[in-house]
Amino acid sequence: MKIIGILADFINDEQKTLIKETAARGGYTVDFYMDEADAAQKIKDAEVLYGYWPAQMLKQAENLRWLHSASAGVNTYLDDSVYAHPGQVMLTNSNVYGTTISEYMVMMTLMLMRREPEYMRLMADREWKNVGAIRSIFRSTFAIVGCGNIGTNFARRVKALGAAKVIGIRRTQAPSDPAFDQVVTFDQLPNVVTNVDVLALCVPETPLTKGLISRQVIDSLSPKTYIINVGRGSAIDQAALIDALNQGRIAGAALDVMTPEPLPKDDPLYDAKNIILTPHISGNMSLDYTCQLDVDLFVQNLKLYVEGKPLPHLIDRKIGY
Amino acid sequence: MKIIGILADFINDEQKTLIKETAARGGYTVDFYMDEADAAQKIKDAEVLYGYWPAQMLKQAENLRWLHSASAGVNTYLDDSVYAHPGQVMLTNSNVYGTTISEYMVMMTLMLMRREPEYMRLMADREWKNVGAIRSIFRSTFAIVGCGNIGTNFARRVKALGAAKVIGIRRTQAPSDPAFDQVVTFDQLPNVVTNVDVLALCVPETPLTKGLISRQVIDSLSPKTYIINVGRGSAIDQAALIDALNQGRIAGAALDVMTPEPLPKDDPLYDAKNIILTPHISGNMSLDYTCQLDVDLFVQNLKLYVEGKPLPHLIDRKIGY
Repeated sequence: MKIIGILADFINDEQKTLIKETAARGGYTVDFYMDEADAAQKIKDAEVLYGYWPAQMLKQAENLRWLHSASAGVNTYLDDSVYAHPGQVMLTNSNVYGTTISEYMVMMTLMLMRREPEYMRLMADREWKNVGAIRSIFRSTFAIVGCGNIGTNFARRVKALGAAKVIGIRRTQAPSDPAFDQVVTFDQLPNVVTNVDVLALCVPETPLTKGLISRQVIDSLSPKTYIINVGRGSAIDQAALIDALNQGRIAGAALDVMTPEPLPKDDPLYDAKNIILTPHISGNMSLDYTCQLDVDLFVQNLKLYVEGKPLPHLIDRKIGY
Repeated sequence: MKIIGILADFINDEQKTLIKETAARGGYTVDFYMDEADAAQKIKDAEVLYGYWPAQMLKQAENLRWLHSASAGVNTYLDDSVYAHPGQVMLTNSNVYGTTISEYMVMMTLMLMRREPEYMRLMADREWKNVGAIRSIFRSTFAIVGCGNIGTNFARRVKALGAAKVIGIRRTQAPSDPAFDQVVTFDQLPNVVTNVDVLALCVPETPLTKGLISRQVIDSLSPKTYIINVGRGSAIDQAALIDALNQGRIAGAALDVMTPEPLPKDDPLYDAKNIILTPHISGNMSLDYTCQLDVDLFVQNLKLYVEGKPLPHLIDRKIGY
């Protein structure tokens, strides 16, 4: 059953042809599923799956050997229990979101620093007024948790915009991009975040990142600090964040991810002071460039797969990336 | 009457001391006026004026020889009729707004491209929804009208963020920063702006820039084009801009300057489609860095002035900068 099943709405005809041709070299056929219902009927036959897959569908993929996630976040695919035969499944992901998500982070940094939500409210009320002090990326200090594709792209951008210092915080003391002035491991986080202008989170959800920004860490931050989160909501103690915002103990926050999602209409996070929320769209796949990169990366991996070669960037389901 | 009169609320005590010491070397004394009423009583004696001066007060400055404007925009100071003795007045300005205004322009570019106002409205209504296609600075094309301190800083920033092409448009074919891929003169503007992602305006108000973005130019733009204006409102045919926005003939606009200011509450500009307005705050002097630079530049000039040396960057009141 050499079948590749794809559930994705962002692939154009040219890209479909490219995928089919690559697959055919190894004797594979490609099924582009119309929707989840269509996919559910056919998933049993697929040896390879690509796209945005609800984890609860995967149990039916009895022949699955390789799952390539179009999402950078793979936390729902980590547990053995989601698979029919966990031992035989390789997991890879796209990691193509650096450009679009880092642009989101630059935008949010500036919107917080320049008090743009206040100006939008004033203009909506047609009130012409200067709200006072603003700040700038230029000469500011950043702590970036997660030094992968997203964190590195953000570090490069704020450095290019004149940031005074960019500290990377990651799981291991691995080689990092020169845009980071300093790189420390997670255990050092409490020591390096207490006096930064921006604390930016771009880590996947793993046992190590859950609750990393604890109440204790939040309470240790400077009143000048803005928090930005584009990774997973579980990295932050959300109740502690709300308290710190409402009491003015930190300067503001911009969250694209939160707990839970979608956020219930009565959640107090909506009403927190100096907060900007977006509905998990920072890695919006509708950016042509991101789609192209995503398909390119899948096709590169597919070439290796059909030739029986090892796949790069395999995700270790135990550590989560 | 060797008196220097200063009307500015952003100067700290340390800076005041520095100004006084520099002035004293030439036998000058410094008057820090409390407000406009206080200034009006004393302006007659001042040989030098620094700060934010309402043009209609200057006629009383009978002894004025040098006016240093804390604003980058000096259009209200150009006409001979504002001075008691126009022939003896030298005009200089600060030109220190590149950092803060270019950060504003980066923010607005991203807010337009990423449809952030729509997300802010959705989140205000607690609706969790993806609004669809967004765009990015990465690989986009920019036309920047005005290649001075602000335009150059913006060009450097979007280039660092991966812009595909940055075209500078200026009065003269003078040497320009390497961040510009191409530089053309005003007369070439209609030929180079018809297919850009962003048309950014950072020109002073001069006879040459008034109405530069005419109805004809606006009607020639691509539907993908965003307009950003941080110079002076008079550069744009505002009625034509409103038409183009409301008919979807351009993608959006962000304006920090407009006609008139403050914008009357019933002005149709407020209701234009895909517009973001701010009340002339992009060069907000409350940014410490900007204040520091501004005072530094005035002190540098003051040193030269008290030594009887020529002042650099004198404004030619005929051409407007």
